Amino acid sequence: MNIGIFGTGGVARAIAIKLVTLGHTVMLGTRNVEETKSRTQGDTMGNPSFSDWLQKNGTVKVGTFAEAASFGELLMNATSGGGSLPALEAAGENNLNGKVLIDISNPLDFSKGFPPSLTVSNTDSLGEQIQRAHPLLNVVKALNTLSNPLMVNPELVNGGDHTLPICGNDADAKQKVTALLNTFGWKNENILDLGDITNARGTEAFLLLWVRMYGAFKTPMFQFKIVK
Amino acid sequence: MNIGIFGTGGVARAIAIKLVTLGHTVMLGTRNVEETKSRTQGDTMGNPSFSDWLQKNGTVKVGTFAEAASFGELLMNATSGGGSLPALEAAGENNLNGKVLIDISNPLDFSKGFPPSLTVSNTDSLGEQIQRAHPLLNVVKALNTLSNPLMVNPELVNGGDHTLPICGNDADAKQKVTALLNTFGWKNENILDLGDITNARGTEAFLLLWVRMYGAFKTPMFQFKIVK
Repeated sequence: MNIGIFGTGGVARAIAIKLVTLGHTVMLGTRNVEETKSRTQGDTMGNPSFSDWLQKNGTVKVGTFAEAASFGELLMNATSGGGSLPALEAAGENNLNGKVLIDISNPLDFSKGFPPSLTVSNTDSLGEQIQRAHPLLNVVKALNTLSNPLMVNPELVNGGDHTLPICGNDADAKQKVTALLNTFGWKNENILDLGDITNARGTEAFLLLWVRMYGAFKTPMFQFKIVK
Repeated sequence: MNIGIFGTGGVARAIAIKLVTLGHTVMLGTRNVEETKSRTQGDTMGNPSFSDWLQKNGTVKVGTFAEAASFGELLMNATSGGGSLPALEAAGENNLNGKVLIDISNPLDFSKGFPPSLTVSNTDSLGEQIQRAHPLLNVVKALNTLSNPLMVNPELVNGGDHTLPICGNDADAKQKVTALLNTFGWKNENILDLGDITNARGTEAFLLLWVRMYGAFKTPMFQFKIVK
């Protein structure tokens, strides 16, 4: 399948590599293609420069947000929280309408350092903001509750036995996303459908606990498993 | 040990019963003792009336917030979020200073129905507000991430094997709280000390996810276990 991913950072790259491994064709969307491709400095999160990464992963295409949106039969948002609405705006309604978007972003605010707070929370969420701004796009919030190695290789902790909450307004869209998640290694019994997109308030707010646990554990290689 | 609990609702009652079973002497603190004792109506959460409950649990004392605070060598806050700061204010500095307070409260706002939002979150927390208002009280945030039957009987789900995050500024206070939690059935390996009281932002924000999961599961008998 042709998949368009908004973003070129650690999450976008991890997802792109996994999708290519699974036989999909991927285009990453960015604001300025030439500027992104010419980056030779690693980022502050320890990721290699984009040009180095692209050289090693040459089958991944790079385009504008609009090109990636047009290319993708399925779309994924892996931009930073602050970049999400502008990226979707740049993608263009015609390239979005009727498609499924997996929204992995979190509205993290690092302006006061670590741990971050959220730019939107409690009575609203970034997932809802994206859905409201693009009512004909089928937004499914997923994969935003864990570190990017675990998104695409859940078996890296506890043999893959931990909980992934998802939410969204459209049942068919959630079914498509679940099928893709299955190919990433997520078992159906660990995918928890919370309901409509307002539940993104819950899964995004979890980041406020996640960053505290990351601070305590000194590693992002953990996740929660709901037990009953 | 003499333990003072602020509050007379479901959480306060569950904790009181457990503490009595464990041999402690408990005083519940309330705003108006006679009014509380005369309540013959059950509450909206399905709890029996306070007078019925007290009749069955006659060894539990009832006093004002100040009397409960003075009585307790250890204190617990089980008031509603909105009632917490007024209760502590009414308790009086002399009855609080130097003591340990286990803060179980969550700043839930039900004004728009279920699921609730939080009255304080993201860049502050109720736990921090209580600690700032009473700097000589040793606040330990604990037990606020799960339903009251599980607080005092963790073995009711997954044989007790799930995670309880705690936080607070004072290491000795956290050690005392941990020792009490052990007697409730919490194993040390499941008690996760996140650090100082600012981590209450994380554990209180978890409620925004908890209420969504409660909505999905239709039961409060679940908890998260951190897996690595």
